[in-house]
Amino acid sequence: MTRMVNKYRLYQIVFESDTKAGKRFDILLLWCILLSILIAVLDSVPYLNLIYKNEFYTIEWVFTVIFSIEYFMRIYISPKPIRYIFSYWGIIDLLAILPTYVSLFFYGYHYLLVVRILRLLRVFRILKLVRFNREAIFLLRALRASSYKIGIFFSAVLTIVILLGTIMYVVENGENGFTSIPQSIYWAIITVTTVGYGDIVPHTILGKFISSLAMIIGYAIIAVPTGIITVEMSKSSEKNKICPQCNTNNIETSNYCTNCGSMLKKN
Amino acid sequence: MTRMVNKYRLYQIVFESDTKAGKRFDILLLWCILLSILIAVLDSVPYLNLIYKNEFYTIEWVFTVIFSIEYFMRIYISPKPIRYIFSYWGIIDLLAILPTYVSLFFYGYHYLLVVRILRLLRVFRILKLVRFNREAIFLLRALRASSYKIGIFFSAVLTIVILLGTIMYVVENGENGFTSIPQSIYWAIITVTTVGYGDIVPHTILGKFISSLAMIIGYAIIAVPTGIITVEMSKSSEKNKICPQCNTNNIETSNYCTNCGSMLKKN
Amino acid sequence: MTRMVNKYRLYQIVFESDTKAGKRFDILLLWCILLSILIAVLDSVPYLNLIYKNEFYTIEWVFTVIFSIEYFMRIYISPKPIRYIFSYWGIIDLLAILPTYVSLFFYGYHYLLVVRILRLLRVFRILKLVRFNREAIFLLRALRASSYKIGIFFSAVLTIVILLGTIMYVVENGENGFTSIPQSIYWAIITVTTVGYGDIVPHTILGKFISSLAMIIGYAIIAVPTGIITVEMSKSSEKNKICPQCNTNNIETSNYCTNCGSMLKKN
Amino acid sequence: MTRMVNKYRLYQIVFESDTKAGKRFDILLLWCILLSILIAVLDSVPYLNLIYKNEFYTIEWVFTVIFSIEYFMRIYISPKPIRYIFSYWGIIDLLAILPTYVSLFFYGYHYLLVVRILRLLRVFRILKLVRFNREAIFLLRALRASSYKIGIFFSAVLTIVILLGTIMYVVENGENGFTSIPQSIYWAIITVTTVGYGDIVPHTILGKFISSLAMIIGYAIIAVPTGIITVEMSKSSEKNKICPQCNTNNIETSNYCTNCGSMLKKN
Repeated sequence: MTRMVNKYRLYQIVFESDTKAGKRFDILLLWCILLSILIAVLDSVPYLNLIYKNEFYTIEWVFTVIFSIEYFMRIYISPKPIRYIFSYWGIIDLLAILPTYVSLFFYGYHYLLVVRILRLLRVFRILKLVRFNREAIFLLRALRASSYKIGIFFSAVLTIVILLGTIMYVVENGENGFTSIPQSIYWAIITVTTVGYGDIVPHTILGKFISSLAMIIGYAIIAVPTGIITVEMSKSSEKNKICPQCNTNNIETSNYCTNCGSMLKKN
Repeated sequence: MTRMVNKYRLYQIVFESDTKAGKRFDILLLWCILLSILIAVLDSVPYLNLIYKNEFYTIEWVFTVIFSIEYFMRIYISPKPIRYIFSYWGIIDLLAILPTYVSLFFYGYHYLLVVRILRLLRVFRILKLVRFNREAIFLLRALRASSYKIGIFFSAVLTIVILLGTIMYVVENGENGFTSIPQSIYWAIITVTTVGYGDIVPHTILGKFISSLAMIIGYAIIAVPTGIITVEMSKSSEKNKICPQCNTNNIETSNYCTNCGSMLKKN
Repeated sequence: MTRMVNKYRLYQIVFESDTKAGKRFDILLLWCILLSILIAVLDSVPYLNLIYKNEFYTIEWVFTVIFSIEYFMRIYISPKPIRYIFSYWGIIDLLAILPTYVSLFFYGYHYLLVVRILRLLRVFRILKLVRFNREAIFLLRALRASSYKIGIFFSAVLTIVILLGTIMYVVENGENGFTSIPQSIYWAIITVTTVGYGDIVPHTILGKFISSLAMIIGYAIIAVPTGIITVEMSKSSEKNKICPQCNTNNIETSNYCTNCGSMLKKN
Repeated sequence: MTRMVNKYRLYQIVFESDTKAGKRFDILLLWCILLSILIAVLDSVPYLNLIYKNEFYTIEWVFTVIFSIEYFMRIYISPKPIRYIFSYWGIIDLLAILPTYVSLFFYGYHYLLVVRILRLLRVFRILKLVRFNREAIFLLRALRASSYKIGIFFSAVLTIVILLGTIMYVVENGENGFTSIPQSIYWAIITVTTVGYGDIVPHTILGKFISSLAMIIGYAIIAVPTGIITVEMSKSSEKNKICPQCNTNNIETSNYCTNCGSMLKKN
């Protein structure tokens, strides 16, 4: 009996964040994740790696052990362990600890690099902690509602960069960095998104003229996704209550109809 | 009789996308177009062209034959073949197959390049498949409704870049890449659109000061087209009630028609 | 009598654009201005100047004579010639023809450059032709209405770039292009406006960190002027009619109140 | 008695800006601050420093004495001097005069640089003068209201740049400038914010492909903060009616209070 109660209590702490202990656990975990990411990032700096190699190694193992304990605790507590293991977050949790163990067996330089990427997947675990956040849901809902329109916008952008890339490849005659169509499309993306690295630039007069058009297109069409998302957010932020007496739209927080003064139901 | 029915059935499949078979045909065609574009793009990479020259050549011919069959089928099925041939989409369809046949007769390098551009016109055929798309129409209508205001905005931008280019040509004294007014206008466009390649940069103190102004202008006035399009989309996205008496569009919250005063049904 | 009628008729053609002849005159003038600008721009290209020097010179004089005739015609027709001469547009009109006459007396290279700038002032004459345009007035009104807020925004941006410039000057120790505070402020403007020429880039680790912050600041605060102008345009585009019966706000185009159906006055 | 009246009069001039004298004092102070900043900026230019070293030194001392007098006057006038000294603005006021005095004792080059930064803190004093500005408060309120959503947005951007940086570090194999993960994150920030210095650019094909994705992501997600701030400003700019019964804010078009149902006065 007591054990089950304890297990339920642990479940509340580890999986939920409504209780005080649950919130503390989440914040502790957040700091562990952030610190372990920081260590993984600093570890990649050749200068620091040379000096603090052993320290980084030790700290990495400390975090890995902490995350491993957390992972097995989650499996133990969970009412449906198998379901947790193969869930989206379960796989992220596993991938966040696996690389360090894997690195024990593989010593090749390139493998270590891949391990490093996997280690930085812990970044995703931060997202898990804000999973139930209301404001984040608001943003995601607005993005999802406008995803179809944004898809069309991106198809149009893709069409533009493919055409621009092909034209510039012909115009610059395969020279000045425009060595192939994919390379020219890469240039078109750099230009249309207004990034402008400057590693590939047109050298012919016609090329410069087409570039100018590409820049102005890129500069102007950014207004389209901005308009789409602004309108969608504006809609999401106005949820209405309909008055049962006079059918007037009232804003979400209203208790009485703004038109006839009759009472509104609570949402 | 049967033949005519078959022809009508084929018409539904090829020209319309309401039936199941019509949808499947559209998706199959979309994949063919996308793959043929991909092949045309990869073919331009010198490294790949060297190794897979023959494979690319064969695949290109396969797609050209497929598109040719489709083109002649459309002419055969269409109730008004001449009208289809000289329609906008008919010309695009023809241009998408012609280049490969043309390349049989011309072997010069530069001609082949032009052929490649024509081949990539197939990108436009994708647009045809989304022709009747509702969301795309919404976007286009918002753009068209604000096209006049955006035209004014572009006239203002053009005036600014011409003046900036001329001033910088004089200030930098025709040196440091500012070798002529068109070249300086090219620099002004790079700067005002915030692309910033860095291939032409001011070297004099006054030139740097004017550049700073140009950057801040470009940074700020992007807000103008964004505002225009957002307002236009916001208007378009408001759902309307059609008046049963006079067909006027009324906004969603209206109880009476704004044009003739007759009562509107509740939504 | 006839002469006065003719003068009035000429006044309508030259100064107004409501009549058919007035519109034709405006369009003819617009093309002359655009062509004369194009010639002035092309004339600055060393290659073209070498070949077509005489042609450019002749065309330039043709346009100057046309504009001179137009200028003196305006003085002759205008009921208050002195007022026209010293008006804003009168001075622009004079400046657009003066440089070519001035160039007869001065042959120095640098003087010619200044003359070229003055010649390109003709760009402003285009603005005159759209002077009474309704949509342009709408845009200008929205910009003017939000000018105070945008002024505050620019003060904030200026404060940020001065501080960033000073900090980077100290951090980079006056090296790597950060040779003085004004130079560092120039870098800060390039970075915050997301232009990113790349002619001055940080080389120290701390400098790169501060740059990253500057970029993210610049990337995010562009939202502020966009928001200001969008809201202002949104307001301008909704002019309302108040219902005399029930005080409901109706949109500008309504003839009947959307709430009670009573008739609205014409604006 | 008279002395107290004088002190109160001085308080009005120095601390408040409602009276005519107070406004004049503020504008005089603003010019002093702007000029002293300009001198500090110009002083850092090696060329000007060489020629006008003494002039700059003298002017700097004149301003420091003026600001010192102002500082001590504020302490003398203030009813609660201790509170003023340790207030936010009091510390800024002190930091704005301290550096010049400090520079009397330290002659090292680097110390002087830090002194220069402190001197430019006077920029903040300008903000003090617009402290009570209504429009600025409007902007700040909109920013504060959307700060939580913008925080989430920045977390997402941070996650994206960390992941992109790590992936590019592995893909470019630690070469071509991608020498460590922090360096690669610096590149990712340059790319996602569309700044695009071009000091670090991908050289591998896979790297260029990932860059293209990064650019398009950066180009598109700028729409998110813009949408957030536009919606927030749009809300703030709607004028409210205050309910006489319960002090609730009602939107402009309401006839009855949304909270208690009591009737609202017509505007």
